[in-house]
Amino acid sequence: MRATVLVRPKHGILDPQGQAVESSLRHLGFDVGEARVGRLVDVELATEDRDEALTQLSSMCEQLLTNPLIETYVVQLGDHVVTEAA
Amino acid sequence: MRATVLVRPKHGILDPQGQAVESSLRHLGFDVGEARVGRLVDVELATEDRDEALTQLSSMCEQLLTNPLIETYVVQLGDHVVTEAA
Repeated sequence: MRATVLVRPKHGILDPQGQAVESSLRHLGFDVGEARVGRLVDVELATEDRDEALTQLSSMCEQLLTNPLIETYVVQLGDHVVTEAA
Repeated sequence: MRATVLVRPKHGILDPQGQAVESSLRHLGFDVGEARVGRLVDVELATEDRDEALTQLSSMCEQLLTNPLIETYVVQLGDHVVTEAA
């Protein structure tokens, strides 16, 4: 089963990459508000069971993929958001 | 209107970050196949028109957000994938 984890800086956490993107977009003439930059991880899981996949992904996020002090994450299976963690 | 651009390395392009994540997940005991790491940009657009938003986002991706030689992107408005570029 294919899954995507979207990792974003928490609100209130400084995001210099996002600020740089925001500033550059404005200089290019785009009318934009705040921009934030995060990362994504695509991972192919051996299991085809949806609940098992979500359990594994949650564990991966806690152990390796995210820093819960400063980041939040969202898990997508296919194109759908299925779980969020603050 | 809030939009998210998901940027991924193209197939065949070396992704050392993804390889590191894949290897670390296996060492942690997870049964995973390939992992790939990309980035995401959340941006708040002034327009509320969907077509206008997609036009602007496509232009932002070409001019700043992606490197079309080695990356692909997907635009999401809300939680839905609405456009992809090879």
